[in-house]
Amino acid sequence: MPLQPWMKLISVDDHLIEHPKVWQDRLPAKYREAGPRIVETPRDGLPAIQSWLYEGRAYPYIGLNAVAGKKPEEYGIEPVRYDEMIAGCYDPKARIVDMDIDGIEAAMCFPSFPRFCGTVFLEAEDKELALLCVRAYNDFVLDEWCAAAPGRLIPLVMLPLWDPQRAVEEIHRTAAKGAKAITFPDLPHALGLPSVHDDYWDPVLSAAEETGMPLCQHFGSGGENSLKTLAPDAPFAVMITLMGTNSMQATTDWLFSSVLHRHPKLKIGLSEGGVGWIPYILERADNTWRKHRHYQNINRTVPPSELFKKHIHGCFIEDDFGVENRHVIGVDRITWECDYPHSDSFWPGSRKRAEEALANVPDEEAHKIVELNARRLYNLPADKPELAATTG
Amino acid sequence: MPLQPWMKLISVDDHLIEHPKVWQDRLPAKYREAGPRIVETPRDGLPAIQSWLYEGRAYPYIGLNAVAGKKPEEYGIEPVRYDEMIAGCYDPKARIVDMDIDGIEAAMCFPSFPRFCGTVFLEAEDKELALLCVRAYNDFVLDEWCAAAPGRLIPLVMLPLWDPQRAVEEIHRTAAKGAKAITFPDLPHALGLPSVHDDYWDPVLSAAEETGMPLCQHFGSGGENSLKTLAPDAPFAVMITLMGTNSMQATTDWLFSSVLHRHPKLKIGLSEGGVGWIPYILERADNTWRKHRHYQNINRTVPPSELFKKHIHGCFIEDDFGVENRHVIGVDRITWECDYPHSDSFWPGSRKRAEEALANVPDEEAHKIVELNARRLYNLPADKPELAATTG
Repeated sequence: MPLQPWMKLISVDDHLIEHPKVWQDRLPAKYREAGPRIVETPRDGLPAIQSWLYEGRAYPYIGLNAVAGKKPEEYGIEPVRYDEMIAGCYDPKARIVDMDIDGIEAAMCFPSFPRFCGTVFLEAEDKELALLCVRAYNDFVLDEWCAAAPGRLIPLVMLPLWDPQRAVEEIHRTAAKGAKAITFPDLPHALGLPSVHDDYWDPVLSAAEETGMPLCQHFGSGGENSLKTLAPDAPFAVMITLMGTNSMQATTDWLFSSVLHRHPKLKIGLSEGGVGWIPYILERADNTWRKHRHYQNINRTVPPSELFKKHIHGCFIEDDFGVENRHVIGVDRITWECDYPHSDSFWPGSRKRAEEALANVPDEEAHKIVELNARRLYNLPADKPELAATTG
Repeated sequence: MPLQPWMKLISVDDHLIEHPKVWQDRLPAKYREAGPRIVETPRDGLPAIQSWLYEGRAYPYIGLNAVAGKKPEEYGIEPVRYDEMIAGCYDPKARIVDMDIDGIEAAMCFPSFPRFCGTVFLEAEDKELALLCVRAYNDFVLDEWCAAAPGRLIPLVMLPLWDPQRAVEEIHRTAAKGAKAITFPDLPHALGLPSVHDDYWDPVLSAAEETGMPLCQHFGSGGENSLKTLAPDAPFAVMITLMGTNSMQATTDWLFSSVLHRHPKLKIGLSEGGVGWIPYILERADNTWRKHRHYQNINRTVPPSELFKKHIHGCFIEDDFGVENRHVIGVDRITWECDYPHSDSFWPGSRKRAEEALANVPDEEAHKIVELNARRLYNLPADKPELAATTG
């Protein structure tokens, strides 16, 4: 049976475009000039380019991926202005209208200008301002973006990645205000930070466990790691196709690090890489573990696939092969995403596409995939009290 | 039914360790001092280290992966001497004995000291000597290694990658002597060479087509590409697990380059990355192609998965998930490998492991996977005349 009307779609990976005043509304006066703001650069015969200006650097691609409502024939890589996007990109009330059109109950949105996990602030020179910018973004998400539609926009917060103690404070501060998840780089070492094999992250991971918030690792959030290995003349399609290899690497790092053994309640959500690769990587990781654990500093008693099934979740937009192999992956490990307003999204036909993708999946499993697994992962209240037991 | 006795296992990915005289026996006198030779470095209380010396540089790991016959508990990363390896590593007659023990009919072996596709010679300073070394290796493979057991050791030759015209000459020279396949970097751009998107390779690809020889891309042959993105403190197991992502990248590069459209008879064999990842990558490549082909310089009429099914072959040692999904991959696309004497090998139990892996596969499909697909790929004569039609 296809999706039943009573199943509520929860997207674990959408994107918001920050409106021009997000930081100017919140930063102290002395920081407003250096803090992120929109500037216009005139062009002959064309509309002016709108860019973010932050610490003197321009970031022109405010809406590179804001293609919702466009046909593939209209996709391109030119800068886009606010008035060339549909309002749902940056206006939460318009977003809810677009979600209603799309048949979606709730959505978790990643940042855009600061990048998927706020690395623009990691790279900033003035770290006092950067910390204020992180807090301002999180307050925007909690007080403005998600507050516009409580229960329908799921608060995802970013961390000051350069300072674990401040990160811990920000986790507890935002959890107290209702945050549900943390955006975290898929490959921290690719950003010049300690890797997940280092104890640098322990306080952060403990805080995530204590607050019950998962780490959400959007593919590509660990910088341009996969780009480093691409041929310079490869078409862009090669990079898009291979982006999921970042999630494979993030997964493999977790499974062979000691972190998950030290943080038994840690939850991880991988975004946008699909799920069809998971059985291959887990089988290869287990085979590697079986043959090569004796001479390396890795856990010798728990095979990697067991850790995966306890800690890690994947998600998909279209991945027919992954859905067919859901029992090998684990139905409880799979969530669903919309990716509005990016090019992978099927908006305004996301629910229809999800119905097609799950056409041969029994109701109980489909319900877990589109809704219940996300409720468990983010500690969202059950929509119907009688479902609470299933989501626990 | 498991493997039938009349099915002959053909391994498309084994490894030979070059004996100490491979180059000294063949180079002109003036080059013998600079050409590759074995030197001994004494150690206190331990056997001397044996290294290859070439152009003044030492390469101590002559048998890093020569673990055939050892238990996983005995694996390590120390240098190994010839007298610490079993003779089948470097002696073709001993290899045949080991293949008989293992239940294997024929095997194609990649080089060791020159690396999987001869990049030691690509990096050499004296390119005249390097070209002679490439030819010497190929003559060793054709006249000595494979000649020791015609029909059971399949000649795989390397190219002077730095000179396409010389490479074309070497393809025709070795094909005339009986060569059956060419070892080729999985990611040429990672070696500083033009990528497969460049027309630099066209003469080489045409020669491969004309001689009917496939390009065999062992994972990792394009240098340490995947290592560039690893955390420096990641356990070695992370790299081993992720090596197949190199094959994913090689495949994606081929599928979005214009090469396969210009070289319709080109055959490609991927080695050691398994096959379980193929459906995920093909689905993602097709989805990417559908949405993003309009603004990029990629073919707009043939989806990537169609090219795959015409040109590319994968292989596996143990990949239960891949075998289960053989119909999605295409039974004709799958070959089998032993990997002797490396750590992925199950020697002396390779045939037993293959029987387990194929326990639920119908005879006709199993026969293609272990034997007939390799015969077609390498133009090997059918073992039984009545099978010729199947292998054509």
